[in-house]
Amino acid sequence: MKRNTESIEKLIIAFGSLGGVGKKTAMRYAYKIVDMSLQEVKEFCDALMTVKERVRYCNNCATFCENDLCDICQNRKSNIVCVVSYPRDVLSIERAGGYSGLYHVLHGTISPIDGRGPDQLRIKELLARLKDGNIHEVIVATNPDIEGDVTAMYIAKLLKPFDIKVSRIAQGISIGSDIEFVDETTLSRAIDNRIQI
Amino acid sequence: MKRNTESIEKLIIAFGSLGGVGKKTAMRYAYKIVDMSLQEVKEFCDALMTVKERVRYCNNCATFCENDLCDICQNRKSNIVCVVSYPRDVLSIERAGGYSGLYHVLHGTISPIDGRGPDQLRIKELLARLKDGNIHEVIVATNPDIEGDVTAMYIAKLLKPFDIKVSRIAQGISIGSDIEFVDETTLSRAIDNRIQI
Repeated sequence: MKRNTESIEKLIIAFGSLGGVGKKTAMRYAYKIVDMSLQEVKEFCDALMTVKERVRYCNNCATFCENDLCDICQNRKSNIVCVVSYPRDVLSIERAGGYSGLYHVLHGTISPIDGRGPDQLRIKELLARLKDGNIHEVIVATNPDIEGDVTAMYIAKLLKPFDIKVSRIAQGISIGSDIEFVDETTLSRAIDNRIQI
Repeated sequence: MKRNTESIEKLIIAFGSLGGVGKKTAMRYAYKIVDMSLQEVKEFCDALMTVKERVRYCNNCATFCENDLCDICQNRKSNIVCVVSYPRDVLSIERAGGYSGLYHVLHGTISPIDGRGPDQLRIKELLARLKDGNIHEVIVATNPDIEGDVTAMYIAKLLKPFDIKVSRIAQGISIGSDIEFVDETTLSRAIDNRIQI
């Protein structure tokens, strides 16, 4: 008996499919499920199914929501749109505070190596939102890595014909960091992007 | 919108109940569920419910199994019983190889600080197994920490009246470790437990 029982092995595979969950961790989760009461496991399943049934993409910005439109699209008036890669980024920016504009979620980045081109992203939906002329600025908030850079450049190029300001969130040294320990690329980028004071 | 939608928040709490899952990790799992197909989420729920419905404790040794008796209790003949704290420990020892005896799972350790006394463990079931005189040796394989030590001592004392050899797995430096970096307690224990060569 060098293996778990069949049903536990299946559950371990299921937990493994959540991404970033190793065999040992998945096993720990599965054992925890065995030790839970039937009621608790039923509630767990309910929570899973409810999310799957209720959560959808906002018709306007494509972040997660449970209605046709998300809270932000429904309640905020703004002529600025912040373009992000994933719904989790909307949450991060909201939590940071300070931004009170709208969002647009691409659901990915351009990544030829993973076979993901612009067509797989919600870029045409972004263009559709810009056509009525109400949006004056687009802030691209993709990650500061190659895929994020490529995606930002692509969008900037695409928006050239529109009379819209396109910007990207600043890249530089983090607040509270120590210049001695900042990596070279970030430091060199921070010097390139220096701001007059 | 500084929070996720209601159903996502509920799922985050559910994932959090698996133990050792922080808020950020639970959120990542929940987002993954949103991105899964309905079919995949249904299969996930099936895996959860199947484990809960099928997996039970072996009537003899109390490890996880899907029948009245586990594979080991059903197929192995031995007069040695290895006492472990949790079902996962059975698997670890089986995987290590070299041991071909039976097991007994306590489902915990004695821990007064957590309000867990000997009565909460499957100790009387262990005694019942020993009464017919077929078992000649009990190896206690609890963890080498205070709770494991207390549990081992308790069992050793309890088995005194029986004509049974009681042993505990060796504590010493790990194979492949470097004496320079072994912690002091382990090193001192390894010297105390030195074996003649």
